Amino acid sequence: MSHFSFTLEATDGQARLGNFHTPHGPIPMPAFAPVGTLANVKTLEPRDLHELGASLVLSNTYHLYLRPGHELVERMGGLHNFMGWDGPMLTDSGGYQVFSLAHRRALDDDGVTFRSHIDGSTHRFTPEKVMEIEQALGADIAMVLDECAEPLDRAYNEDALIRTHRWAERCRVAHTRPDQALFGIVQGGIFPDLRLQSAAFLKELDFPGYAVGGLAVGETKEQMYATLDETCPALPTDKPRYLMGVGAPEDIVEAVWRGIDFFDCVLPTRIARNGALLTRDGRLNIRNERFSEDRLPVEEGCTCYTCRTFSRAYLRHLFKAKEITGLRLATIHNLHFMLRLMDDIRSAIRTGTFADFRTDFHARHTMTDQAVRHAQRQKRAASTKHFGS
Amino acid sequence: MSHFSFTLEATDGQARLGNFHTPHGPIPMPAFAPVGTLANVKTLEPRDLHELGASLVLSNTYHLYLRPGHELVERMGGLHNFMGWDGPMLTDSGGYQVFSLAHRRALDDDGVTFRSHIDGSTHRFTPEKVMEIEQALGADIAMVLDECAEPLDRAYNEDALIRTHRWAERCRVAHTRPDQALFGIVQGGIFPDLRLQSAAFLKELDFPGYAVGGLAVGETKEQMYATLDETCPALPTDKPRYLMGVGAPEDIVEAVWRGIDFFDCVLPTRIARNGALLTRDGRLNIRNERFSEDRLPVEEGCTCYTCRTFSRAYLRHLFKAKEITGLRLATIHNLHFMLRLMDDIRSAIRTGTFADFRTDFHARHTMTDQAVRHAQRQKRAASTKHFGS
Repeated sequence: MSHFSFTLEATDGQARLGNFHTPHGPIPMPAFAPVGTLANVKTLEPRDLHELGASLVLSNTYHLYLRPGHELVERMGGLHNFMGWDGPMLTDSGGYQVFSLAHRRALDDDGVTFRSHIDGSTHRFTPEKVMEIEQALGADIAMVLDECAEPLDRAYNEDALIRTHRWAERCRVAHTRPDQALFGIVQGGIFPDLRLQSAAFLKELDFPGYAVGGLAVGETKEQMYATLDETCPALPTDKPRYLMGVGAPEDIVEAVWRGIDFFDCVLPTRIARNGALLTRDGRLNIRNERFSEDRLPVEEGCTCYTCRTFSRAYLRHLFKAKEITGLRLATIHNLHFMLRLMDDIRSAIRTGTFADFRTDFHARHTMTDQAVRHAQRQKRAASTKHFGS
Repeated sequence: MSHFSFTLEATDGQARLGNFHTPHGPIPMPAFAPVGTLANVKTLEPRDLHELGASLVLSNTYHLYLRPGHELVERMGGLHNFMGWDGPMLTDSGGYQVFSLAHRRALDDDGVTFRSHIDGSTHRFTPEKVMEIEQALGADIAMVLDECAEPLDRAYNEDALIRTHRWAERCRVAHTRPDQALFGIVQGGIFPDLRLQSAAFLKELDFPGYAVGGLAVGETKEQMYATLDETCPALPTDKPRYLMGVGAPEDIVEAVWRGIDFFDCVLPTRIARNGALLTRDGRLNIRNERFSEDRLPVEEGCTCYTCRTFSRAYLRHLFKAKEITGLRLATIHNLHFMLRLMDDIRSAIRTGTFADFRTDFHARHTMTDQAVRHAQRQKRAASTKHFGS
């Protein structure tokens, strides 16, 4: 595994400062990965991502498999070449999208058959097929195929965990690309014994990194945090730890506090396109009438291009007039906010002041609960589509 | 008129190389102005326009009057401050939009009453009202309110010209802002005697610049060029000459050949969002199946960000997947193409080789006829909505 290494530079309580080295450069951790579903972060270009300081970009296997197809991407020189991004990349396994987005899925122990949400055509994902797709895409980090079960349903989680572990073994065997790191995914819902069983099983397979999956899809925040309290200590200390699909600022602070190293989430980019802008004091909805003549930037003191250049009044005008430029300016601000948050978290760990940082953050970030509840409602709506539904 | 001056640096036949100096800098001419209808060039930011080398941006009085309102823009420090563009700007008079876009318009000699295309509310433009709006917006160049008549209808043009001239006089009186240049607009359809009459009348009013209006809205290309042949020699040589709403590359070359100094048009930005990309050999539709695995840039040798970074295959993927980033990358390429064309035209005039340039351009630009016909069809559809319709 000479292409990859994890260096732990400092710890502060359970919080970890480190670097995951990939063929496309290091990922300073804790890190947040913007989501580039269809081989682009919506409204942005690679030069924007560099300017914002993104160190890792996620792209979705399910979406790229359907459009433009993994074989086409491979013939075009792989995902990095295709989309013009020369930094580290990660692809998910597509499992979450098959279970939340595809139509008419049918699961068996060998894999899952589903219909495309675009044209209804029938497809099948097995661990071997997903490894073929992810290796063709060629991201630096690939994820095993897993089953994301309803986190509160014990019987379902027990059943799904057996498949998830068998699929992890099969992915491990099928994955051969040396310049790509395959990460395992710990499942088990909110049940500590299942999480520990999963962590122990996957540790034996010796993955170069581990994800915690199946969270932020229906459980409460307290249940999510309690699950991380149990799971993180069971993961190897010398491998990066990835909390999938989590991106509310408050949840990121709490997960880092419990030992998570990196994150991905559509939240900052998706809510940006709805006019919801992240600030240290919470979210503001730029469409609100009260901003119509507001000369202030979205957030005072913010150094992003949007805040350096435009007033809230101008942004509101663009949103009210449905101008594409507004979606882009909001996306730039929200990603800047998330990536500066990760900078601040890394600085606090480096200086051993992360406990104070966390206290201050929560005291100030009063409106985040609302944002988290909104995001969880959206995910819950998606996750209610189970097998056979 | 100390804020403005026109310097003619060279001529090559009728073609003119010059600079129009404004409070926000010089506009090297011949120039092409991208259209920023609602205080932004769709998908772009001011920094993009600087990078592309735009020297003049047009914004639409009708649109800004309705959203967000000229008084709001004025309270926010004027259009430059509001949209973050520090280069030269021009606002049209709104007349063309009232006649092509608004609903249920009723014309009288004093002005025109119309209903908003957004919410059906009733509004009235008079020369004095339009001057109030344009002075509040505060662009460097403002245009008089005129009536854009069907170019082939002689009786209509005779009638409209009387109003247009009276309105020009009233605008001249109502316009008082010293840091804004008010340009007159020559009308008269395709009828040489009406055009000459209009040019003579407006010359007496001593505007700091003159537009040729009412073309590219239904007449043939030959009729347009013949009208320019008649009109340009009747305009002052010491003032800039603006051909409104023309932007097909071939028409620009032909109009410069006849003595026009600058242009505006939505064509390059609008067709970009439909996936039509300008090249020296004509247009290509990036959605075409034949580009699905094409590793070439949109145009070989093009130095725009899009061509430096991405393949046709990637752009096609973005358009097929309806990704916003694709609209932006196409807009960047098309504006780069137009602004490089203007660079090349200026170089040719400077070196006295514009006749050769024109011959080479037409020999190569084989597909443009199609582009022009398409643009004219769109304009014709709009211009069939006359008074009382």
